[in-house]
Amino acid sequence: MAVNRIDHVGIAVDDLEAAQALYERLWGAVFIARDALPDTDCVLLATGDTKIELVAPRGPETPVGKFLASRGPGMHHVAFEVDDIASELRRLAAEGAELVDQEPRAGAFGHTVAFVHPRSVGGVLAELVAHGPE
Amino acid sequence: MAVNRIDHVGIAVDDLEAAQALYERLWGAVFIARDALPDTDCVLLATGDTKIELVAPRGPETPVGKFLASRGPGMHHVAFEVDDIASELRRLAAEGAELVDQEPRAGAFGHTVAFVHPRSVGGVLAELVAHGPE
Repeated sequence: MAVNRIDHVGIAVDDLEAAQALYERLWGAVFIARDALPDTDCVLLATGDTKIELVAPRGPETPVGKFLASRGPGMHHVAFEVDDIASELRRLAAEGAELVDQEPRAGAFGHTVAFVHPRSVGGVLAELVAHGPE
Repeated sequence: MAVNRIDHVGIAVDDLEAAQALYERLWGAVFIARDALPDTDCVLLATGDTKIELVAPRGPETPVGKFLASRGPGMHHVAFEVDDIASELRRLAAEGAELVDQEPRAGAFGHTVAFVHPRSVGGVLAELVAHGPE
């Protein structure tokens, strides 16, 4: 069974540029990449050998838009790095975890990802990430 | 200026033993230590070379107890590892950040810690951690 390190912490933000500037200023975070997905714009920042992903919604009806409307900006998800998402999803399903994504899918920054529902993770939205090129 | 890695992600939980078992089962997290503070009971878990801190309140009137009552279990804080908390607090105050702790204080697991208010960090409760023995 895999022991998975935290790949990044996902932060929901209203204003991507302002949030990036804040993280650079407060924590010395270093820009890695920016990407656009159908529902979100994302910036990946390095904090030492760990990472922060800033996620801004593309509209209020997107999942992150609804998250911001109900909870405000803040911690959104924890991503765990895994070697093989498909096999991890099978294992998690066998453990009774509720999967948001039944199969791996393309995420930001060329990564393959899948989400696990917070109902199964003590209120934490969890992401599995397998790395492609950043 | 320091570039600070994520030391751990703090998760607020109702039931410390159940949450520890869940993290061990779902993510292969490995027990490091358990500690008791005046307001909280904490378990530190390793996920690869990163860490998860599970935090359970000692009563409903504690800060974590109030957090659970208003938001439910889930992500509670992000902790950044720093070498010198006092100098980082001075720097952050000079940047206009609102400090929860004006001075470093004793935290769980023999660490020295200080918190920065989520109002200054885009809704994220941020902790500074300097390591003593675990």
